[in-house]
Formats: sequence, C-alpha cells, structure tokens
Amino acid sequence: MTYISAALFIIGTELTRGVIADKHCQVLASQLTQLGYRVDRMVLVPDDGTIGEVLKECVDTCDIVILTGGLGPTSDDLTRSIVAQMAQVPLVRDQATFDALYARIGERIWGANEQQTMIPQGFAAIPNPYGTAAGFMGIIPEGEREIVCIAMPGPPREMDPMFFDQVLPYLAQLIGHDDFSRSEYSTFLIPEAKLDELCRQATFNGLQWGTRFQDLKISLYLVGGNEEERSEMANRLNSLVGPSLLVAGDIMPAQLLTDLLVERGETISCAESCTSGFIAKLLTDQKGSSAWFYGGAVTYANEAKMAMLGVRDATLQNHGAVSEACVLEMAEGMLKSSNTDWALSVSGIAGPDGGSNEKPVGTVWFGFTSKHRSSAAVRVQLTSYGRDSVRRKASVVALILASQYIKGACLLDTVKKWQYI
Amino acid sequence: MTYISAALFIIGTELTRGVIADKHCQVLASQLTQLGYRVDRMVLVPDDGTIGEVLKECVDTCDIVILTGGLGPTSDDLTRSIVAQMAQVPLVRDQATFDALYARIGERIWGANEQQTMIPQGFAAIPNPYGTAAGFMGIIPEGEREIVCIAMPGPPREMDPMFFDQVLPYLAQLIGHDDFSRSEYSTFLIPEAKLDELCRQATFNGLQWGTRFQDLKISLYLVGGNEEERSEMANRLNSLVGPSLLVAGDIMPAQLLTDLLVERGETISCAESCTSGFIAKLLTDQKGSSAWFYGGAVTYANEAKMAMLGVRDATLQNHGAVSEACVLEMAEGMLKSSNTDWALSVSGIAGPDGGSNEKPVGTVWFGFTSKHRSSAAVRVQLTSYGRDSVRRKASVVALILASQYIKGACLLDTVKKWQYI
Repeated sequence: MTYISAALFIIGTELTRGVIADKHCQVLASQLTQLGYRVDRMVLVPDDGTIGEVLKECVDTCDIVILTGGLGPTSDDLTRSIVAQMAQVPLVRDQATFDALYARIGERIWGANEQQTMIPQGFAAIPNPYGTAAGFMGIIPEGEREIVCIAMPGPPREMDPMFFDQVLPYLAQLIGHDDFSRSEYSTFLIPEAKLDELCRQATFNGLQWGTRFQDLKISLYLVGGNEEERSEMANRLNSLVGPSLLVAGDIMPAQLLTDLLVERGETISCAESCTSGFIAKLLTDQKGSSAWFYGGAVTYANEAKMAMLGVRDATLQNHGAVSEACVLEMAEGMLKSSNTDWALSVSGIAGPDGGSNEKPVGTVWFGFTSKHRSSAAVRVQLTSYGRDSVRRKASVVALILASQYIKGACLLDTVKKWQYI
Repeated sequence: MTYISAALFIIGTELTRGVIADKHCQVLASQLTQLGYRVDRMVLVPDDGTIGEVLKECVDTCDIVILTGGLGPTSDDLTRSIVAQMAQVPLVRDQATFDALYARIGERIWGANEQQTMIPQGFAAIPNPYGTAAGFMGIIPEGEREIVCIAMPGPPREMDPMFFDQVLPYLAQLIGHDDFSRSEYSTFLIPEAKLDELCRQATFNGLQWGTRFQDLKISLYLVGGNEEERSEMANRLNSLVGPSLLVAGDIMPAQLLTDLLVERGETISCAESCTSGFIAKLLTDQKGSSAWFYGGAVTYANEAKMAMLGVRDATLQNHGAVSEACVLEMAEGMLKSSNTDWALSVSGIAGPDGGSNEKPVGTVWFGFTSKHRSSAAVRVQLTSYGRDSVRRKASVVALILASQYIKGACLLDTVKKWQYI
C-alpha cells in the first residue's frame, strides 16, 4: 500500500470555542508536504462524543491520520478509547510507559494517570519526555486498506519534540526516504510560486522540496538524496534565479551583510529615502549591532537630502531624487559625515502614486560608496504589488547589493542576472 | 428550526501545505461561541476536488456552515460551484455585484473576474468593499432540514469586515439576539490576555467582546447592547488601561499622529537610537507621507548622535545615551536641522544585553520638542519580551506620546496612568 493522503485531526474544545488558536496544523502540514505527503484535510473538533464520527470520515478517505490532543488524564480526553474502538482492539497497559511514568511520579500513578499508560492493543507507544501522556501509533484496518494512525499529546511543548524526533523519521521512511535528510536554504526576492516552478526544473534523482514563506525571505528545504545531490540541486537553482538570491542555511537578508561586516571588522551607514528607515531597522534587528552600524539619514523630503547629506539642489532639479546622480551624492554625503567603511543609499518610487512612464512605481536607484573602492550605483525595476511590497523588496535588494559591493562584484552584472524579482 | 451547531470550512491549499497559518478559525469560533452557537468542527481543506465531499459531511451534521476562501477568479477557486451543486441550483449573475465591480474595474471585468459576480440562485450576495469577490448566503435544503450556508472570501482584510459588519448581525438575529450591533476599537501596548481580563471587569448588561492581535495593535470588538452602552464600556476600559491606549475605530498607531499632523497642516522629524529607523518607517507606511514627514536621523552610535544631531560629548559622558539630557539634545538638534514643526527622539536599552540595575533592558527615554511649545522628555520602563518586543513597543509609545505632546497633554501624567504596558 502506498501512503500519500494524510488527515490531521486536532482535538480541543478550547480551539472550537476560539479561546486559543491552533498551533499544530501549519507545523505538521508543512513537514508532511515537504516529505511528499498530500494533506487532504485538517479537522479541529471539541473534546466530546462527536470525535468518533468525524474521525471515521478521516479514516474512510485518507491513508494516514495524525491526531493531537485528547490524551490527558481527565474524563473528556477520549482519544485513546476512540482509536481502540475504531481499530476494534481493547486498551491495554503499555508496561514500558507505565514503568517510565512510575519512575517519575511514583504512587501518584494510581488514579487518573494510570489511564495514560494504556494504548490500543497492537499499537506502539511513543515516549513523551516532556509530559505524562505517551503517544502511540499503529494500524486501523479498514476493509482492504490499512490506515496508519498516530496520536500525540496536544501541548506544543510535548507534541513538537515527539513529532520531530520520533514521528517524522518514521513518516519519511514510510514514503520511501531511506536515508532521511534535508538541507535548508534561504531565498530572497523570488515569488513562492516561481520558486516552486524552478524547483520542478532543477530537481533530479527524486529530490523533493518544500518552501516556507517567512516575512523577508522564503525558506527552501531540499529533501532526500545525499548532501552532494542536494547541493547540486541548489547550484542549479542558483543559476536559474541569479547570484546571491539563494544561500545555504537559515539566514535573514540583513545577516548576509552583517556577517560580512563582522568578519571584516568594518562599519556601515545608510542614507534612505523611499525605504525610510527600514534598512536601518533591519541592520539593528540583531543584538550587538553597534559593532557594525553607525547610523543613517532618513531623507524623505528633498530638503532633508540637501541638509543632512549635502545633495546639491542642481542634482535634484536636473535629475530628480530618483536618479543615479542623487543616490551617489546621498551615499557620498553619508560616508563623509559618518566616516564608516561603507555607505549605501536608496531612492525610489514606492507608490502607489507618483510614477511616470520613464520612472514607473517600483523604480529604485541604489548607491554605494566606500573608503576602499570607487562608488557605484545601479537601477532596479521592482514589480510592484503595492507600496509595502516595493519598500520591503527595495530594502532586501539594498542589503544584498551592499554585500556584493563589499565583495567587489559588479553590481550591474548581478542585477542583470536576476531573473524573477 | 433551531440553529445551534456550526461548522467552519476554511479553504486554501496554502493552508494544507503549511505555507501559511489559518487566521480565521479562532476569530469565527470565538464570535460564534459568544453568540451561543456550538462550533462542532472546523475543517481546513485544499482548493481541489475534495471540497464537495468534505462539505457534504458538514452539511449532514451541522445547522450552519460558514465557508471562507475559494472565491477568487482562478480556476481552482471552486466554492461557488460546489455550493450551488449542493443546493441543487444553477449559478446566476448577481446584477448589483456585477455593477459594483464594473464601476471599479471597468472592461477588465470580462474574463476571470466575471465569474466572481455569479452566486447560487436564491442566495443573497454579500458586498465586499475590500476586494473583487462578493460573499453570499442562503439555504441548502437537506431532507427536512434547511442548512444555512454562508461563503466569504479568504483574505482576512476582506473576510473580517464582511463577517463583523454583515454576517455576525445576521447570525445574532438567527439565534435570537434582536438588536445586535458592535463597535470596533484599537488598543495599544496591552497584552491580549490582560485586555480580556479587563473586559470581564468592564462589561455590564451582557455586553460581549472579541479581540484580534494585529502586529502593532489589538483590535477590540464590543458586541451587543446599544451604542451608548458600548461606548460606556469603552470608557470604563479606558480608565483601566490609561489614556490613549484605546481609541475608537480601526487605527494604526502611526495614524494617531499622522491624522493629527494632516489636520493641522504640520510636519515632523525624528531622531532614533534604539528603534533605529522603525518609527520613520511607520510614519511613511501610508501614501502621501511627504506631506507630514521630513525625515530623520538614525543615530545608533554615539558618534552619530554628536555628528548628526549635535549631542554634546559631555552629555554622553555624564548622563549616558539613555538619559533625559540626551533625548532632549537629540530632539532639539533634529528640530534645528529640519525646521519642522515638531521633532521626537528615542533612546533606550533594547537588549538582550547591556542593561544595568539603574537602567535595565526595556528602559527607554522619549524626547519631544517644537517651535510651538517647550521641550519635554519622559522615561518609560517597558516589560521586555526580547529585543524585538522592546523596539516595537518603544516605537508605538513614541507615536502615541508625540500625539499627546502635540495636543498639549502632560506626558508624565499620561505615562503614570498606563497600567499594563
């Protein structure tokens, strides 16, 4: 039997009364998806008699049912008896679970907690190092089909380690990842749907992938194969998306730049117009940022560009604030007043209004200067999905281009090779 | 027929793939529970052919089925046709919806968007002021029973107002609340659990409430009673939380300040240390911000405070950067170089390291100055839940205190009355 279709079954009256928000669905669904399972339904139900009926529907249509919750010692925690009923087996004591719990709570085990050492006959107990409720997994026979049923406790601090350490490796084997392993990458500026399409192009030898959108980046998980193969797939992707838009590990865009500065023992300052402080904010998200960050000028008004950075009135008159000349003067003014090793500048049209044919919304100029090398500026046309999207993307571009500039790469070359931003 | 049992049916492949977390279940479940409904299941399914089968199970067992998602213009958005099938009626164009959409997008309506003007025959359209997909509600007959079926779009910015303004009053009537209505408030800096506790204290005559965490604020909905009663409950809350931490309407913290500046035709600039550009970023989130925002100095390093704002070396030596004297010099330096009507400054200890007994992590000084009145500074001790939390809270405090300062309120008084930040 091939196991593909999964159902998540989350039990808790506090969820269906809206007292708390579910925390499991996204974690479980993203991991299952990455392994190649298809999550066909996620069901949240109260701790009451209706569990059996709804669970039956999951068993009828899916190959794997993962339950969380309803394993506590109180009378309304029904999961273990419902699963036993459905598997048509009695509940029996799991001696190892009993012994482990007895070692921890002694004679207090006699009472409600004893119930927590019972599991459906034929199922395997899953130890719970962080609580009193063991999980269990086994088979529910359903005509010709054998449904894999896995039950875990509800509290995230118990469920998460049980799932990641004990259940996930089993599920990886079940779907055919013999040597289950994965590598994590961080990708920038690529729309998630496009990344998925590119992974389809770049995959080979059955390598799988999963993505997770995280604010300023998308995490990419390559799953299966060996490390060399996953790294080869990452190289293929890199050549499709363009330089520096995919890096190994769990990295925020600002870290690309700050790691480099820490390594070199150097400092930076920034002059921002359209991003209006957002780059400075990102550069100081990490602790200890005073080691690399001097500060910056947020020069939103043209008067601010002149007063704080010494941009010339003639430059603004002749070229406008969104121009090569302006961002170069901004960066140079910033470097001069800050005496940092590096300075960057940004000026663009965030919209929604204010664009022209020549400079539509999403047009952004980036400037860079330094004690160590000559200045550079480059224009990038960002696809606009609104003011916020232009400002966020411009900030990420500035951080990536600054690292490229420090490394001595040609910015124009870099930007030309970016395919999908 | 008595309607009690409700099912929530949330559609979106990005949910079952774990790309995003569901945001609707808790909001809908808590509101339905408060009205007296019993939510018997919440089901999340992908945008695919299995929707019909799972929806049938909900219809078989519940009296009310609320769907979100699957109303977009793309081919995998199946909600409207599945509901029509289940109600055994054709899809027909809703002329009012068509006219409203045509008025907004004109000839572009011909194509995928036209589909969004179709609803199951006999259902009522629910206007969507924030998107192209109208919702709809009607009856699915099921033998003797008549199931109420309500479909709304998936994006929270479209679903929330549709639910609260149009669907919730209907559901209240359905279960027997004759005069149902609600008011929305925005609250700042109060932990959600505390807000809930305070609502319990402030409620009377059976007024209900719901909260929703939204990044820099928590939305509070007061439900039931008449407008006067809800406003009285808001007043009681206001006196519990302290001035300006609860305001009527859906307001972001920066708007408190920018609305005031627009009304007065005045401008502001800001000098930031620990918030490092975040306030400048928030002040420019709205379009047209060049009308009120000049720019600012991000003076992270002490050298930056001296070079960009004229803070004196002696001040830094004698009082430190996190001090009344320093934030006053920062604000005054900013006002002088910018020539704006108002200037604000912030300097604090964001952590996680660097605190002392005298100035623990979370200590933040705020400075304000103006052409119109004498300078003021105030110290706030923020509860630290990490660097990010301190910086976000400090930014919100700065925006609120700036509005208070412009209005001529005493800042020390204001801060003293804040109870739970």
